[in-house]
Amino acid sequence: MSLLTRLLFGRTIANREAQEHRLGVWEAVPAMGLDALGSSAYGPEAMLAILLPLGAQGLAWVSPLTIAIVALLAILYLSYRQTLQAYPGNGGAYPVVKANLGETAGLLAASALVVDYILNVAVGIAAGAAALVSIVPALLPHTLALCLALLCFIALANLRGTMEASRIFAIPVYIFLASFFFILVWGGLKTAAASGHPVALVAPHPLGPATAGMGAWLLLRAFASGCTAMTGVEAVSNSMGAFRSPVVGRARATLGLIVGTLAVLLLGIGWLVHVYRIGAMNEAEPGYRSILAQLAGAVAGHNLFYYIAVGSALAILALSANTSFTAFPRLCRMLAQDGFLPRPFALVGRRLVNTFGIVYLAGSAAALLILFGGITDRLIPLFAIGAFLTFTLSQTAMTVHWHRAAASGDSGARPRMAINAAGASATTGALCIIVVAKFSDGAWISLLAVPLVIMVLRAVRHYYDDLYRAMQVRGSFAFAADPPLLLVAVESWSEPVRHALALAVRMSPDVVALHLTADGLDNDGAVALLRAQWPQVEETAAAAGRKPPRLCMVPAPDRRLDRSVLDFINHLQLQERPVAVLIPQLVPRHWWEVLLHTGRANRLRRELLRHGTGRVAVIDLPWRPEPT
Amino acid sequence: MSLLTRLLFGRTIANREAQEHRLGVWEAVPAMGLDALGSSAYGPEAMLAILLPLGAQGLAWVSPLTIAIVALLAILYLSYRQTLQAYPGNGGAYPVVKANLGETAGLLAASALVVDYILNVAVGIAAGAAALVSIVPALLPHTLALCLALLCFIALANLRGTMEASRIFAIPVYIFLASFFFILVWGGLKTAAASGHPVALVAPHPLGPATAGMGAWLLLRAFASGCTAMTGVEAVSNSMGAFRSPVVGRARATLGLIVGTLAVLLLGIGWLVHVYRIGAMNEAEPGYRSILAQLAGAVAGHNLFYYIAVGSALAILALSANTSFTAFPRLCRMLAQDGFLPRPFALVGRRLVNTFGIVYLAGSAAALLILFGGITDRLIPLFAIGAFLTFTLSQTAMTVHWHRAAASGDSGARPRMAINAAGASATTGALCIIVVAKFSDGAWISLLAVPLVIMVLRAVRHYYDDLYRAMQVRGSFAFAADPPLLLVAVESWSEPVRHALALAVRMSPDVVALHLTADGLDNDGAVALLRAQWPQVEETAAAAGRKPPRLCMVPAPDRRLDRSVLDFINHLQLQERPVAVLIPQLVPRHWWEVLLHTGRANRLRRELLRHGTGRVAVIDLPWRPEPT
Repeated sequence: MSLLTRLLFGRTIANREAQEHRLGVWEAVPAMGLDALGSSAYGPEAMLAILLPLGAQGLAWVSPLTIAIVALLAILYLSYRQTLQAYPGNGGAYPVVKANLGETAGLLAASALVVDYILNVAVGIAAGAAALVSIVPALLPHTLALCLALLCFIALANLRGTMEASRIFAIPVYIFLASFFFILVWGGLKTAAASGHPVALVAPHPLGPATAGMGAWLLLRAFASGCTAMTGVEAVSNSMGAFRSPVVGRARATLGLIVGTLAVLLLGIGWLVHVYRIGAMNEAEPGYRSILAQLAGAVAGHNLFYYIAVGSALAILALSANTSFTAFPRLCRMLAQDGFLPRPFALVGRRLVNTFGIVYLAGSAAALLILFGGITDRLIPLFAIGAFLTFTLSQTAMTVHWHRAAASGDSGARPRMAINAAGASATTGALCIIVVAKFSDGAWISLLAVPLVIMVLRAVRHYYDDLYRAMQVRGSFAFAADPPLLLVAVESWSEPVRHALALAVRMSPDVVALHLTADGLDNDGAVALLRAQWPQVEETAAAAGRKPPRLCMVPAPDRRLDRSVLDFINHLQLQERPVAVLIPQLVPRHWWEVLLHTGRANRLRRELLRHGTGRVAVIDLPWRPEPT
Repeated sequence: MSLLTRLLFGRTIANREAQEHRLGVWEAVPAMGLDALGSSAYGPEAMLAILLPLGAQGLAWVSPLTIAIVALLAILYLSYRQTLQAYPGNGGAYPVVKANLGETAGLLAASALVVDYILNVAVGIAAGAAALVSIVPALLPHTLALCLALLCFIALANLRGTMEASRIFAIPVYIFLASFFFILVWGGLKTAAASGHPVALVAPHPLGPATAGMGAWLLLRAFASGCTAMTGVEAVSNSMGAFRSPVVGRARATLGLIVGTLAVLLLGIGWLVHVYRIGAMNEAEPGYRSILAQLAGAVAGHNLFYYIAVGSALAILALSANTSFTAFPRLCRMLAQDGFLPRPFALVGRRLVNTFGIVYLAGSAAALLILFGGITDRLIPLFAIGAFLTFTLSQTAMTVHWHRAAASGDSGARPRMAINAAGASATTGALCIIVVAKFSDGAWISLLAVPLVIMVLRAVRHYYDDLYRAMQVRGSFAFAADPPLLLVAVESWSEPVRHALALAVRMSPDVVALHLTADGLDNDGAVALLRAQWPQVEETAAAAGRKPPRLCMVPAPDRRLDRSVLDFINHLQLQERPVAVLIPQLVPRHWWEVLLHTGRANRLRRELLRHGTGRVAVIDLPWRPEPT
């Protein structure tokens, strides 16, 4: 068992090694940037799908829309850069919003993120599996199994530690970036050489005729869909705990690298798509190729490089869930430390990551995938809302932060406030557009899920508040000196029982050995042997100067040993005197031996702890058979 | 949770109520006879299927073959009647064979029965589901789910107790018996009135032309297949523990009723099948009707009564697994009491039945059903071998028993020996025929599985022998008087900790409070509060005349609290002095609160018991928050 655990998860990392297992910039880009960079694969695709009814005319709008999105991205970058510096400890949306806008707003940001991260995992994995199925149609009946296998793989990689996961996923990220930068540069050169009209090596899918006219509504929807390219940008601020020091410098560099790369990709793709006249295809159509695949084919032709580029894009899509696995457990840990989530979310596992958070995230995503049969298209509209709600709240909080700083005389605060205010307004605008454009597609589900999560968080906090109040030591207290009564559970005369009696007489002068007799079900031989042995026990105790233990037979009329023991204790009418029940425990040498034992000792302990008053303690004394 | 348990399984039955929950004759017939009576549905069917190639000519052989089978049944009845009387305590094959032919032969009988009972459940349920599917073809894609649901239902009924299960299943049994006795009588009267040539109300499926000639091989195979009608007869002897006293009288009456009814059914069906010219149909054929359904239609026509009769026959088939659920756990209990099976098989659950045996039987059958996708036809040939092997061994053992009795001067033993010897020879003959006739159909699997089970039984026994040897108290022993060192695990200054310290100072003068500090992960406030509080703890202890407890901070460099505690203990170099670690335990008020706690106390206890030497005991002190 422990070998398997070790093989799966690696050795336990000590606290002092924590620093070595934190991330530098190059590891952080794959760990936190997968979601954002993966967006470059589906953001333009989603926008072009909306523009499809315009035919070739729609392509003229791609560049202006992309520029608008990249402008928004730039504002967001500048705003987050400031946040990272202002909150070097932790610039995540939850602590920043809580500090500036109060607890309720903080919880709103946190729940939006919680919902978003879970959706991101389900949607990312389903999209990756769908892309793979479109290449290998034979896998279609196994879509769900494929999704779950992928989920397990990503979860397992993260359970091995953030560093391990980012190392595993770095390869596809950097292959993807290298391939598409090459395609952009090569395509740009070709375009320049052909005076803006290059010939595609592999012709893209022909564009259909225009079936609708241009309208503001269509434009807004295309913008809203394109904005999904921006989700994942907040991950860096929520994962600051994962960075090696100096944290702020590394976080800013990582954010800059991710946003810069994303902007270049979006602008380049937007431009070349227009030049090469590439439109979105219907996924259900046979021979479907994504925008990126068409672009790669048009620029580089169908060769080995094409398959590497398209394969890496597919891997990025499938692995974009990794960003959630980096950020979600850290967010949950903060919430748990504030008492809003169960305490297991605050614990650090053997690889210095929060096992509970990772398992919970994987479990929720698996539930969604199973519920939707691995086809989560219907969840996509829900998706950008959480991210933009968080952007808006976080920027507004920062605006308040700088406003306060300015009020207390910080002269540099005013320009900073302007930047965050610009970010807040821009993201608010985008959020409104997205909610309106996607409301009927299912965005209302997000608006329902978020308050629900807030309610759960508040309920958990309420529970802990009550508990800590009850745990407070109030007033003065006193200790008593008389030893407790010690009951020893004995089944037969054996080495573990002798061992237990030897401990019992050292702990209390009042020892009673209890033999529980379930009439007709017990071995009479065992009782006789016990009785025969007892005089020797009494003599031995007396020789050690202790009061001899008594032997009592207690009936167990319904085989519930705990009830019989508690009845016996009540019967003694000890008033306030504490009682301890000593249970000899056989410790097996191998895990499978558990099957060969009744687990009666464990059950007795559990039930005594549950049903006994606080007065009854249980003592487990392990006994290990010597190898014979 | 406990309400659900109670709803599903009912209240706990006390030992003294055991007698009231044992069976009388009328309850025992459905509990133990379902398998044997269900045989009347598939025994003749199996025989006629073999005779199919003979066409109409084959029907002439049905009565002679049936008479041969009933004769064998009669010998078996007389033999078992004697066994029940000779072993009033328990006349099951395992104890009887063990007593007379030795342990190895006893284990052979036991393993044959174990394999047989598991197969019986899988095959019976699959046959019931198949019969239902043949009526409602829409259920075909859900065959496996149907099988598993049926299995759950029967297992659950048995977990509620043998009495409950037999009451539930009595209704279909008695409806079945009433309907088919009526059909036999009515059919007989009609035949007599028509001078042996009655007209069928609903014509049976026309018999095909003869495609093969009569041969000894065919006849032997038909006999071997018909013998499956006898399986289940041994169940009464294996389930004697389920009877109300006087056990022997009731067991004999039950056996007599089951065998008598079965014989009448077999003879009647054999005769009427010939008279009405009814042959077996191919199950895969559309419009398939079983022999019993054709017979009911021919005698009574297609009316409500027909559906009741056929429905009850179907229910009997589906519920024939119940016999295994009565006999298997009792067999396992005997084996476990002798140390050949894990001890949980010897325990009696809340409803006085062995929960573990029932769950194990259901689990094994479910595994077989899942493995074969709910279609267990291929398992049927394996099926009669175990039963006939047990018959043979049991009768041989009884022959030896009477031989010994005769040798020691019992004059009545000789005729009894003759009967059992006749039984042994007859069943040995039948066993040889079955093995030869069915060997290539898969009977060899049984011949492989049985030795495997014997090996497992012997391995388990070997384990317990070793363990009990190690548990023997050897030589003299002494008790020491000095109290153990008591370590109290404290996390923060709280009511549970105060409570734990109060108990600790009563148990030992040497108390050390251990605070485990995982650097960087702990709440520094908690440590400061503890230190601030300590002088008061020391004063309070001194006021009670006890040595003040010390407070120690112990580092937990890799968050493994158990290792830190054990390192601390090793560090103290206490030699032989025992140590007890006191862990305050928060007892939640509701089961779901488990989710809100880290379970650290449980983990610490478990790991200390596992990794500590036998010297380190663990004390759990429960603490329950007062309602606020």
